[in-house]
Amino acid sequence: MDIGILVIGNELTSGMTQDTNSSFIARELYEQGWGVSAVMTVGDDGGAIKGGLDYLLGISDALIVTGGLGPTEDDMTTAAVAGAFDLGLYTDDAVLARLKERFGRLNIPWTENNAKQAIFPEGAGIIDNPVGTACGFFLERSDKHVAVIPGVPGEARNMLTGGVIPLFREKLAYHECVAKRTIKIFGLTESRIDEALPHEDLKIPGVSVGSYPRFPEIRLVVTSRGEDRDHVEESLGVVCERIEGKLYKHIFGYDDDTMEGIVAALLTDRGLTLSVAESCTGGLITDRLTDVPGSSVFLERGVVTYSNTSKVELLGVPASIIEKYGAVSEEAAILMAEGVKKLAGTDIGLSTTGIAGPAGGTEEKPVGTVFIALSAGEGTTCRRFLFRWDRRRIKEMSSQIALNMLRKFLIGGVD
Amino acid sequence: MDIGILVIGNELTSGMTQDTNSSFIARELYEQGWGVSAVMTVGDDGGAIKGGLDYLLGISDALIVTGGLGPTEDDMTTAAVAGAFDLGLYTDDAVLARLKERFGRLNIPWTENNAKQAIFPEGAGIIDNPVGTACGFFLERSDKHVAVIPGVPGEARNMLTGGVIPLFREKLAYHECVAKRTIKIFGLTESRIDEALPHEDLKIPGVSVGSYPRFPEIRLVVTSRGEDRDHVEESLGVVCERIEGKLYKHIFGYDDDTMEGIVAALLTDRGLTLSVAESCTGGLITDRLTDVPGSSVFLERGVVTYSNTSKVELLGVPASIIEKYGAVSEEAAILMAEGVKKLAGTDIGLSTTGIAGPAGGTEEKPVGTVFIALSAGEGTTCRRFLFRWDRRRIKEMSSQIALNMLRKFLIGGVD
Repeated sequence: MDIGILVIGNELTSGMTQDTNSSFIARELYEQGWGVSAVMTVGDDGGAIKGGLDYLLGISDALIVTGGLGPTEDDMTTAAVAGAFDLGLYTDDAVLARLKERFGRLNIPWTENNAKQAIFPEGAGIIDNPVGTACGFFLERSDKHVAVIPGVPGEARNMLTGGVIPLFREKLAYHECVAKRTIKIFGLTESRIDEALPHEDLKIPGVSVGSYPRFPEIRLVVTSRGEDRDHVEESLGVVCERIEGKLYKHIFGYDDDTMEGIVAALLTDRGLTLSVAESCTGGLITDRLTDVPGSSVFLERGVVTYSNTSKVELLGVPASIIEKYGAVSEEAAILMAEGVKKLAGTDIGLSTTGIAGPAGGTEEKPVGTVFIALSAGEGTTCRRFLFRWDRRRIKEMSSQIALNMLRKFLIGGVD
Repeated sequence: MDIGILVIGNELTSGMTQDTNSSFIARELYEQGWGVSAVMTVGDDGGAIKGGLDYLLGISDALIVTGGLGPTEDDMTTAAVAGAFDLGLYTDDAVLARLKERFGRLNIPWTENNAKQAIFPEGAGIIDNPVGTACGFFLERSDKHVAVIPGVPGEARNMLTGGVIPLFREKLAYHECVAKRTIKIFGLTESRIDEALPHEDLKIPGVSVGSYPRFPEIRLVVTSRGEDRDHVEESLGVVCERIEGKLYKHIFGYDDDTMEGIVAALLTDRGLTLSVAESCTGGLITDRLTDVPGSSVFLERGVVTYSNTSKVELLGVPASIIEKYGAVSEEAAILMAEGVKKLAGTDIGLSTTGIAGPAGGTEEKPVGTVFIALSAGEGTTCRRFLFRWDRRRIKEMSSQIALNMLRKFLIGGVD
């Protein structure tokens, strides 16, 4: 049961506008248990539209077309679809009356080009648009189903879920159930994960595993499909458990979890307080933590100690230590974490210091050198890293590692 | 001169991931004066890839393929492209050696599946990947040109602009000149901008103006096309000047400028130092400023004073003021900006305090209430805002307004 998606608009083929409809439509179809054969985007051009329709219909059981239903001259989707199926066009009087009534109600002057939005291919069924002026339509030709909806994202989404999907559920034979779980991993490369996975044990009928890097994380998406809901859920559970058995040390969350959300929940649950001293991450750690509602419960303060003076004044790091070992050093990182913890009176202190570049590196400490320290109770741990990315990615990776060190400390794990 | 784009990945046809590469590629091609025949997205499936290649090659002079070049089993783009052109595969020893050297240098254990990334179709030219492991390649077959690059956005962008476009410019005949300028505006809604623009005066042959909201900014993209380079540049200049004449107060930058980059350059130029006291923005202001290389020259410190105690200890805000007016108040914001400036010994102090929600609002100060203050010399300015978005957008807008206040102060402008 494969469905094609045809997206129409010059603003898309020129790269002026980012298409988000096709991704939304694909996700909705996927969750219904249908597959997407292909997504094609073409400009407002009759020949290109006809070519796309023909190709997609050739490899699909049904087709969703979006865009080009507006009142202006360059909106030619309706005429192109009618032409591709050798159908004439007609004006739907009920739709025309509703359009005029809407314009009157909203006090918008009626211009004749708007009547174009009441024109449909002969034999088409009309799909109502509860949030805009352009109605959609559907056609059935030699066992293939075509639904056409506008390109305005709010209208497309509304008409897809309210109009097209109910229609396709009625018209298209399908019985599949789908269940999905995203496993979020940090601290392993994609190829190390691939190597660690028990591929043979994961080959359960109806279940697939995909690996998707999202810097600085890797996401494994497990999808289970089949006729029976209980069986689908059970197969999903079995495969997830087998993956967890191999990778549990590196899994930090599932589905919509974020690293900062997990850390925030752990701190809140355990009633522990945190203070953060950032140098190279420049505030990114507290920015992420304060994205979580309720973070004021555990976050006492953050300090971005970019100057040496501020490290002395706000963290009590002795100037002699900075002079002797440098501001980017294990000694400084440890004293920063211990200093912020003590001065803020929190249970935990976290610190970063490093050289994010592009300038500032030395032979001994090249650009990308980062020290991250965590202080709690009597103990302080510090780790040294060398990253090879640009400034932003060094900041992102450093903040992620700092949060992950905190997560591991909170769950009592060892590294 | 039409180019097709083929995007490959199950994460895209299932709607898991939003494709942003094709829009970026389309925009870059458009700026070179080339058109896009169609964009097609298919899953990691040999048959679907072959179908897409054949269709797009039929309607295009050249083709850019992105995605499916990773080391895992489901990455099958190289094999599918080779198959579509009836070519064998070979391992490139130089690429293999570089891959192994890279793994060694970064201290990542080598696993055999990585060798897959050194396999190419016979006769292919290799496109270097300066920022990742997957090299791209290009093929020329019966006057059609095919370039294949990875799907990871950072790598795809780098290799498109650094590898594919220079190659296509060499191989493909084209004559149109295109010049473009992006005008970045902050502080006006899209409809206010539309109203302010002198539309009639902007109608110059070959020049178009598009408006693209990118929260929290609006971008106006002016594109000029024609046969003659000088004429194209001149027309672009005329239209930009007419827009600037109407909107200069709200234009903060052009093209790749960022608000933080502009502010950083102004501070550096004027030799002024800055300290920041953030509450509701949680470190986002210093995170943005420290994305700019060299920010340590002007940024003395930031403090994220999430607790009342930290406002007292790190900023010298009297506890009595917080008790009387609240931590979210004009009084607190002003004392935060003045306090951080004084304690850090900087020329300028910037502060934010507000209720980012979803909880914590009151009738007098609902969720979304934010105070932003700037202190310099003897004067301190404070503004109050009420935003209606989610937590993250409130943080983003607040940080943008704070930086824009600083920018206006630095250029001596009035609000």
